[in-house]
Amino acid sequence: MPRIADITPGFYRIPLPVVLSDSMHGQMLAFELNTVRVRDADGAEGTGYTFTVGRNGAAVDAVLAREFPEIMAGEETDHIERLWHKAWWALHYGGRGGPTVLALSAFDMALWDLKARRVGLPLWNLLGGYDPRVPCYAGGIDLELPLPDLLRQTDGNLAKGFRAIKMKVGRARLHEDVERVKAMRAHLGEGFPLMVDANMKWGVDEAIRAARALQPFDLGWIEEPTIPDDPAGHARILREGGVPLAAGENLRSLWEFKQYVAAGALSFPEPDVTNCGGVTPFMKIARLAEAFNMPVTSHGAHDVTVHLLAACPNRSYLEAHGFGLERYIAEPLRIEDGVAIAPDRPGHGITFDWAGLEKIRV
Amino acid sequence: MPRIADITPGFYRIPLPVVLSDSMHGQMLAFELNTVRVRDADGAEGTGYTFTVGRNGAAVDAVLAREFPEIMAGEETDHIERLWHKAWWALHYGGRGGPTVLALSAFDMALWDLKARRVGLPLWNLLGGYDPRVPCYAGGIDLELPLPDLLRQTDGNLAKGFRAIKMKVGRARLHEDVERVKAMRAHLGEGFPLMVDANMKWGVDEAIRAARALQPFDLGWIEEPTIPDDPAGHARILREGGVPLAAGENLRSLWEFKQYVAAGALSFPEPDVTNCGGVTPFMKIARLAEAFNMPVTSHGAHDVTVHLLAACPNRSYLEAHGFGLERYIAEPLRIEDGVAIAPDRPGHGITFDWAGLEKIRV
Repeated sequence: MPRIADITPGFYRIPLPVVLSDSMHGQMLAFELNTVRVRDADGAEGTGYTFTVGRNGAAVDAVLAREFPEIMAGEETDHIERLWHKAWWALHYGGRGGPTVLALSAFDMALWDLKARRVGLPLWNLLGGYDPRVPCYAGGIDLELPLPDLLRQTDGNLAKGFRAIKMKVGRARLHEDVERVKAMRAHLGEGFPLMVDANMKWGVDEAIRAARALQPFDLGWIEEPTIPDDPAGHARILREGGVPLAAGENLRSLWEFKQYVAAGALSFPEPDVTNCGGVTPFMKIARLAEAFNMPVTSHGAHDVTVHLLAACPNRSYLEAHGFGLERYIAEPLRIEDGVAIAPDRPGHGITFDWAGLEKIRV
Repeated sequence: MPRIADITPGFYRIPLPVVLSDSMHGQMLAFELNTVRVRDADGAEGTGYTFTVGRNGAAVDAVLAREFPEIMAGEETDHIERLWHKAWWALHYGGRGGPTVLALSAFDMALWDLKARRVGLPLWNLLGGYDPRVPCYAGGIDLELPLPDLLRQTDGNLAKGFRAIKMKVGRARLHEDVERVKAMRAHLGEGFPLMVDANMKWGVDEAIRAARALQPFDLGWIEEPTIPDDPAGHARILREGGVPLAAGENLRSLWEFKQYVAAGALSFPEPDVTNCGGVTPFMKIARLAEAFNMPVTSHGAHDVTVHLLAACPNRSYLEAHGFGLERYIAEPLRIEDGVAIAPDRPGHGITFDWAGLEKIRV
């Protein structure tokens, strides 16, 4: 069985073509990208990555550069469950969240890529294989976009083949959110899948008020109505607001998702493979949701995540959410008539433009 | 109002005189110490620190060195609540736990030290002032110590003035734990405050079985019977095991503590000021416990924490838990007849031996 021969981290800063904003992260000027390449003794390689909206990337890099090579020296690449637990416990004190889990997510992804490449299977097939065609939606970061620009962006997304769209809410006054959602619903027509994302802006009763005000517009879900630290609050918002809820991009473990899922505190668990701990916990979260008769959606990293949802019978939409990473990937995700197609290349099938990334190395 | 002029992090590795072990962290060869010195425009300075059991320190250092100076440039030192929230949200994506929160804990501690020094008050007084004499216990990391050595260590702790002791449990067989606890109880006599710490070793039903087996020995509490990710499991262990529970060294926010406290899932909330987010959330956790008619205990960093518990009417024991840091502090904590005494020097009153630390800088 091949052993880990080398772990090489990379840390890059991807400037955003336009400044993005949402209700709680403020202005985003650049995303940080952390990569990790795991090479085995036979020379086979797997690649993983994670990203941030502009901070904590140096800490992720420190964990990947300083801790993982020591913890994983000489380990068998194929024992992913065991290595995941070894890393979790070796890094538990002062870890168990934050940059440590982002680093672990990237490392775990690299191991799954390596395993799939070694056996010559695309990841979605290795993970079980359900359907490579995954419905997806365009996730806009557009809270401050004037309404005409929002509608123009929407037309652009329709032209790109999207058949479902998510927009930001959480403006200074609820009235503004209602007007914008109303305009989008009118623009897109009845029945077009439309979701909104509040990025943790509201208190619990504010969120209930917002959900009730948005009920007439038939939303697929409201995302992150309040802070991720309040499962009981989410349960109330869901029950009393009367609109389905999605959340998960700020949850960092299977156990955090369990709290929400088992409590019926959301409708669409939304793990991000780059920050929930990797492919290993993402799939457990998806199966947990299935056991609770729930769909699973996703956040970020659509090029990898398409494989994971393609292995899940309960998959809802894949979020397609570009922040410029596609410029550094050889064959970005194909989207056709609202469906993203998991590639049939071995592994996750992402080939980074390492020479191009070198120019934006931190 | 003075503004932040400079933030200087330090990262050190303190070798342990003897290798320590507990049930889940394995062998510990060295602790990592991260310090941060915050200087205001008047030249006044506050000091904060955090530590790890050997990993994640480089990531903490990366957050302190790379993110805090940018986030805090020109801010007023006295607006601690505002700065805490600014840091929490600036670092939220990919933060909200792990090394990010350890860094924030150290930074927040430095701001409180600075504020207290500027007004010339010891921290325990500034925070409210209840009683500078805080009952404390010796926390041993002694799982693998042979029984005669454990009893010898205990005699040493009694000679140092301790009147309460905590020992590790979670050995391979429950029978061994029971024998060791039985011997300690016989050695210390009826009524002597004795606690045990399982460091997350057990599953829920294992923990209930252990608690029941340990019931005859009148323990003050069982600490961390299982993983910190399972409030519902703790609630069952407490109800069905029949022994009080302590936990909190691996919880990273006021909200995580709220889950446990509001659910009645533990008896002794045990925040660590160096990893719960700092003095600011520590005091909120203590007040939350008070509101729920609960005591509050502590983990680690006794030289600072003595001030925090000295401001709480519901304080239980302070943990005194040396890992060699006392060798780098001018006047380590005084313990007299089972009581630690919060110093009357301004701030937290810790003066680090910076020249000595320089020799162990990473």
